[in-house]
This record gives sequence, C-alpha cells and structure tokens, in this order.
Amino acid sequence: MDSQPLYRKLADHYLGAIKAGSLGQGERMPSVRSMMRTHGVSLSTALQACRHLEREGWIEARPRSGYFVRQPRHAALLPLDEPNLLRPPDPAQYVGVHARVSEFIAQGRRHPIKINLSGARAAPQWYPAEQLRVAAARALRRYPDMLVRATPAGGNAHFRSVLAKRAVAAGMVLSPDEVIVTHGCIEALNLALRAVAQPGDTVAVESPTFYGLLQILESLGLRALEIPTSASTGISIEALELAIQTYGNIKAAVVVPHFQNPLACIMPDAHKQRLVQLCERHAIALIEDDTYSELAECDAPLTALKAWDRTGNVIHCASLHKTLAPGMRLGWMTAGRWQARVAMLKYAQTRDNEEWSQIAAAEFMASSAYDRHLRRLRVALRRQRIAMAQAIAAYFPLGTRLTMPAGGMTLWLELPHRLPAAQVFDAALAQGILVAPGAMFSNSNRFDHFLRINCGLPYCDDIDRALRCLGRIVADLATQAAKAA
Amino acid sequence: MDSQPLYRKLADHYLGAIKAGSLGQGERMPSVRSMMRTHGVSLSTALQACRHLEREGWIEARPRSGYFVRQPRHAALLPLDEPNLLRPPDPAQYVGVHARVSEFIAQGRRHPIKINLSGARAAPQWYPAEQLRVAAARALRRYPDMLVRATPAGGNAHFRSVLAKRAVAAGMVLSPDEVIVTHGCIEALNLALRAVAQPGDTVAVESPTFYGLLQILESLGLRALEIPTSASTGISIEALELAIQTYGNIKAAVVVPHFQNPLACIMPDAHKQRLVQLCERHAIALIEDDTYSELAECDAPLTALKAWDRTGNVIHCASLHKTLAPGMRLGWMTAGRWQARVAMLKYAQTRDNEEWSQIAAAEFMASSAYDRHLRRLRVALRRQRIAMAQAIAAYFPLGTRLTMPAGGMTLWLELPHRLPAAQVFDAALAQGILVAPGAMFSNSNRFDHFLRINCGLPYCDDIDRALRCLGRIVADLATQAAKAA
Repeated sequence: MDSQPLYRKLADHYLGAIKAGSLGQGERMPSVRSMMRTHGVSLSTALQACRHLEREGWIEARPRSGYFVRQPRHAALLPLDEPNLLRPPDPAQYVGVHARVSEFIAQGRRHPIKINLSGARAAPQWYPAEQLRVAAARALRRYPDMLVRATPAGGNAHFRSVLAKRAVAAGMVLSPDEVIVTHGCIEALNLALRAVAQPGDTVAVESPTFYGLLQILESLGLRALEIPTSASTGISIEALELAIQTYGNIKAAVVVPHFQNPLACIMPDAHKQRLVQLCERHAIALIEDDTYSELAECDAPLTALKAWDRTGNVIHCASLHKTLAPGMRLGWMTAGRWQARVAMLKYAQTRDNEEWSQIAAAEFMASSAYDRHLRRLRVALRRQRIAMAQAIAAYFPLGTRLTMPAGGMTLWLELPHRLPAAQVFDAALAQGILVAPGAMFSNSNRFDHFLRINCGLPYCDDIDRALRCLGRIVADLATQAAKAA
Repeated sequence: MDSQPLYRKLADHYLGAIKAGSLGQGERMPSVRSMMRTHGVSLSTALQACRHLEREGWIEARPRSGYFVRQPRHAALLPLDEPNLLRPPDPAQYVGVHARVSEFIAQGRRHPIKINLSGARAAPQWYPAEQLRVAAARALRRYPDMLVRATPAGGNAHFRSVLAKRAVAAGMVLSPDEVIVTHGCIEALNLALRAVAQPGDTVAVESPTFYGLLQILESLGLRALEIPTSASTGISIEALELAIQTYGNIKAAVVVPHFQNPLACIMPDAHKQRLVQLCERHAIALIEDDTYSELAECDAPLTALKAWDRTGNVIHCASLHKTLAPGMRLGWMTAGRWQARVAMLKYAQTRDNEEWSQIAAAEFMASSAYDRHLRRLRVALRRQRIAMAQAIAAYFPLGTRLTMPAGGMTLWLELPHRLPAAQVFDAALAQGILVAPGAMFSNSNRFDHFLRINCGLPYCDDIDRALRCLGRIVADLATQAAKAA
C-alpha cells in the first residue's frame, strides 16, 4: 500500500469519512483549496483525489458549487482491481466464442423475458423518434425519386459533410470525401479488419471486450490476442508493448477509447497518444471504435485516437446507433492509408447505403436539435446508471465489485468469490431476467465471474425488483459456495 | 449444317423469307397449323421454330393473333456463336479484375457523361416512386418508434412472409423464418460465398459474368473458374462437368439462371435440374443469384434453381433492386444447409437490416400494385430493348453480333473483327458516352471485343444519337483495322 500515489491516499482518507458517515449523503466536500491547506498537498493532487472519488461514484461535481457526497452505497461495493500486467497475455484464441455467445442468445430466446438487462442500449424513449420521423418524411417529399434512383458512391454528400464537421470537435480534420458511410459500426469494423489483415493474422483487442468484435474476428478467421484492460483507463499500453515483444506479428489493434464495452472506461489522452505512436512504430493498424464518445458527460468533446494520427495508420469507425437512432443502422468510417481499399471492400460487400436515413439524420444533426438531444440522453443515462449502481450496492452481497463508469450504458460487475456468472444467468433467466454473462466478453475464462448489466432503461419498480432478484440469486450462490467450502 | 435440328432448318427457311422481304415488317407469319401442313413437320417442331425466331428477335407473338414479323433488322446483326465447349476452362484466375474495373469506373468519373449506357438498370421513372413514398410515410406514422428501436433478427416479419409467399410461384416452399433479409443481393452473395468457401478456394462462375461477382470473389480471396456460357441457354452443364473432372476441388458455383448479366439469357428448366443434380453429386454449393427473374415477359413465373433442391445444397439469393426500387437496397436469401452459418455471418457483418424500407416494400408487394408495376416495367423494358437493338442493327457495321434477349436490361454486343472494346470505350467517353467494355466481365481477355449496353432508359433522340455515334466509332475502328491488315 505504500506504493500508492499520494492522491489515492488522500482519496482513501475522504472515502473513510464517507463510509463512516462523517461526510453524509448530499453534503458538500471540503473545497480543493481547503484540502491543499489541511493536507499540505498540491492543487493537482487534491484535484486528482476528487476526480478519483468522482470516478468511483462516491462524490459528484455540481457546476460552480464544488463536490458533493452522493447517495450512500453498500460499503462492500469496491472498485475492480487493476488487471495484472505482469501476466503475459494469453496466446491468441479465437475459436468458440461464437458458439458460446449463440448459446446464451438462444437460451435467452427460449424463455419469456420480462426484464432484458443484457444489451448495451438505451430505451427508445430517449431517442428523438418524432423529430427523426418528421425529417424522414420531409426527405421523402423533398427527393421524390430517392427510393428509385441509384445510391451515391460513398454516401449522401450532406450527411458526409455533417459527419466531417462534427469530427472537428473530436480533433479530426476530414474532408467529406474521406467519410465512408456504412451499415453501422459493425460493418465499419468488418471492412477495417478485412482491409488490414488476412485470415490467420493476429489482432490485439481489449480484454474484456465487446462480444460482437470477437464474433467478427472469428467470422473472418482472425486470431484475437486479448490485452489486459483497466476499468479506469482502458487498454494497458504496457501490456500491449509486452505482447508485441512476445508475439511479434500483430497486424492490428481494435480499441474503444471512450466508454469501452463492457468496462465503460475512458482512455486518458496521454494513453491515446502513446497508443497511436506505439502502433505506428510497429506498423500495427490501429482501428478505433468510437461509437459511444458523444455520450460523454462533460462539456468538452472527447478526442479521438485519430486526432494523433500523422501517418494514416488509424482507421476511425463510429455509428449513430447508440447516440441518435438504434433503428437506423447508420455508421461511418475514415480509413487513413487504407481508404481506397476500404472503399473497394465496401462496394464489393454491400454497395452504397440507401440515402433516405442519411438525409434524415443529416438534417437532424445539422441543427441544434442533435446536441439538445445528446444532453437529454446523457442526463437520463447518468440518472439511470447511478440508480442501478445504488440498487446493486444495496441488493448484492459483500464482495461484489463495480467500478462506477463516468458515462455509457453498461455496468460491469465482478461477483464475489469468483461465483460463476453462467449460473446467475440461468437462475435469472428462470425468473424472466436476461443479463450478459462475462464469458461472452472474452475467449478466455478470465471473466466467467462477471456480469454486464444494461443501464439504458428508465429505472422503475420492475427493474428494481429484477436487481433485487439478481442480488438474491448471487447471495444464494455465495451461501452455497461457502457451505461447500 | 446437316447436324442442325429440324426446327432450326424450318426457322432458317422463314428467316430467309424475312430477310428477302417476302415476309415484310408487321406481316402475320403463316399459322403453326399451315406450317405443319406445308413442311410435313410435327406441331412441336413448328412451335420450336417459331419460338426460336421469336427468341432471336425476328418475330413476335401477339395474344390470340399468332406471330408477326418485327421491324426490319440490319441483316448483319447475327446472333452470337455458341461457346466452344471443347476448350477446357481457363485455370482459375482472380487477380486484377478489380483494378481493371476500377480503372474503367474512375475514367468514367473523370469525364462529363451525357449518356450513361454502362449500367444494368432501368430509369427511375419506371419504378413506383410515389407509391413507395406513400407506403414509407405510412410506415413511419404507423410505427412511430421504428427508427429508435432495435431491429428484428433476420428482418421484418411481414416482409419475410411476403417474400416467402412470392417464392411459391418460383417453385420454392419456404417458411418466413428461412428468409434472411440482406443489403441487396450483393450482401447475400458475399454471405453465401463466405459460408461455403475459404480464401484460396475455387468457385465456378459463368463466363462472361457480372463484374460485381468477380470483385466479390477477389475481395474474399476466392479463385474464379470461368465456365463457358451460352447467350441462349446459360451456363454449359457439359463444360462445368468437364471442369469438375479437370480441376477437382470446386467449392461452389454461382449462377444467374434468369437474365444472366451480361448475356440476359434464360436457362431452360431441364438445364436447371441437371445443374442442381450435378452440384449435389459433387458436393459443390450452388449459389443462385435470381435478381432479375420477375422481369420475365411471360405469363408463368420462372422457376428458381432452388425449386429442384432436395438436400439444402442451393443458396437462393435475390433482390428488389432491379424490380422494385434501386434506391432501397433490399435483398434476401435462403441458405439451405448453411442457414445457421449465414445467419451468424450476417449478424457479424452488418447486423439486421433497418426495418423501415422492409415495411414499406412489404406493404407495396402484398398488394396487387407490385404485379401491376412489374407488368408496366416489363413492357417498358421490352420496348426499349427492341428500339436499342434496332438502332444498333442500323448503325453498327457488318459483322456486329447480338443475341436478342427475351428480357432484362442489357444487350451484349460482339464487335466485328475482334475490335478492342477498350478503344470504343475511350472514344465514346470523349463524346460523353459511357458503355461497359467486355473486359469488365471476365478475368480472361476472351470478351475484350464485347460491349454491354444498358437498355433500361427510355429510348429518345439523345440515346439514338449516342448509338449512332457508337456505331460510327466502331465502323471507323473497323476501317482502320482493315487498312492496317
């Protein structure tokens, strides 16, 4: 513990005060200035301590008022451990995840589901259905032959220019011609991987990672090399460097820098820069999946990995599936030095996207309505995330761990005593509750005692009951395990 | 010539009469009954002779009135030769077609185009834009959260059931669950090929074939084995059998049984049955691209290859891109014994299609409006095809060959004296006219003296001038070639 940085010691001090109740729910934290005086620390250390507590979900910043203690939490709900970087990554594995994921999905379909907490999606009510409908109807009237004429190469010109314009805020300078419209981020990732790698090649991925990515790799005959990833700061650059030294021939790395799925962590900018440079140095194509970045609950937009790209080595992929319209399946990408190859592959794979949804989305996104919608969505997600985390803290047994994310739609939960999440999945399913077991997020068994829980749905009595039920299932399993031991 | 079947001799007799003018334009042909009497032939022979002349574009059937001589044609416009079946197919080639196709496309984009005859598409005016627009707007009103809710697995239920119902007429018995909705037939072909073959595998294709297919094969690292294909009856079963014996390891065959692109030929049912059985016997997956079949200008719908499939060895792919709405990019497939694998690949490649266009298309297709639209489209295409063929006959020099197709959107033209179509392409481009040179339709150079010409556009003075200009270009090249010789 002596190796802990100063800010962590300071944060732990105040965490003790919160847990002991000497700083009560809703109370204002001492100001940063008074912390500096009291503990003789620098401004930067005091700020880091506060940000740490905020990230962990113990306090929250209120504009122009300072930090306040959040609702009380179950004392047992500790953050996740940092991944072990000394353990070399597993040799590439890629067989089987699809069968495993399919089996979970098929099981889910065989049961009547009352509460589905297995996705990474927000409720339809948080999206601007009516405004998009109006924009779509207007597009149909304005371009009466749109449905019967050929689709423009690369995508609708206005949509591409709106995307290029918004990319500026994330640090990217793109001409609209550099934007390729795709069927969601999923197609963009497929095209990116097909452009840079051949079947049999190895691709570094975060661990845990989005099971959709593991399925894509498996379907393309690529090998996934899972790199330890922190629930606070994302993929470990050190571990990736170690993997490069150990395994050599890594063709590409796929990274979700913002609200990584399932961890929902955000990479610090310094990490992003190091990652871009590391990949460039070793000629590893860096594929960025930036689907979630506009969910960031901060004033300044997050900066894309692509912003540090000087050589065209970063392929930036994104979608509007999570931020604007789950039912429109709109994605886009810009592919750096693989742009021509990606354009060819897109043409050969699905031709150009139909225009209609692009025109409707472009109209909405070019107005101020999109940013208003995003603000509303973020507030809703934040409220739900906190309510879910509090319920988990209250209902789940001692030893359950959860790093409170700063945004996104999911919570990543570590069960106590390495209890098997597949058993929780089964027992929950019998009650009509669907969750995503950790085994879906890795080809290894390292996350078999984790759950991903969707927090995109409005918190309500049904969800509260479902979480209470999940907590009871986990507690029962813990008791059985204790008896068996 | 003695080996010619009787009906061909009979047909040639009447062709001589037409060419000599003794049967003039618009005149009624002798009745089948009088032919039988005059020549002492059977009903079947007389009918075959008439159908042959009809297929070749010399006569046309009018309901309840018999056959009539069509407009006079340039005597030099002979049908294409049958492919040489004794020549074994080329060893698999697959490199380069994309570069070649891209170069033609890029050249096309660098020039201002006044008349684009390079596609295989009908003019927007032949599609039901307004009815689809209304259906789309209604779908938006009826399902207000459609754009913001998750898309259903496999496709919209109503759309899948409409497709399954229409498939009955083509001889297929499918449950809606067996229909997978895709982004056009292009995605369906990608998924089918990915399901049945691995990079490096060999796939038999028609020669010439749709360049999009050659691009797909190249992008997937598959090898195309080009099988001689007749402009009258489609892929040669004998040549495919020879190829199987010669090259052994063929994993799949991709065939367009109806209005093959670029030949626009229709496979006889007996060929279809033999093809299905041949592929079954040799465990070669048979992938059917049936995008054009509803353009058939006959009362009975054409029967799909899939109709003869008893073992799940046929993957049927189709789209509405040519028949209903070029701007909607709707395709579908049913994958026989690869159904689960295709469903997995579709999920991993682009997830499920957005619902909106499916709902709109389903509404339109479930009504009688779709069949009314198809009838109108077929009449328009037929009128245009005949006008184009007549203009080509009038403007192109002696030795130009063309087999008049019984439907579809394209004409496949053989230049006299093996004149290089690439030079015609260049000279036409300089005049703002875009055509598709034969080199795009094969990895070999066997079709370097062919052109594909779109006949989906309403015949007008501009097109007439363009064809006159093309004819002059070809004639000039022919003169130069004669001088050089």
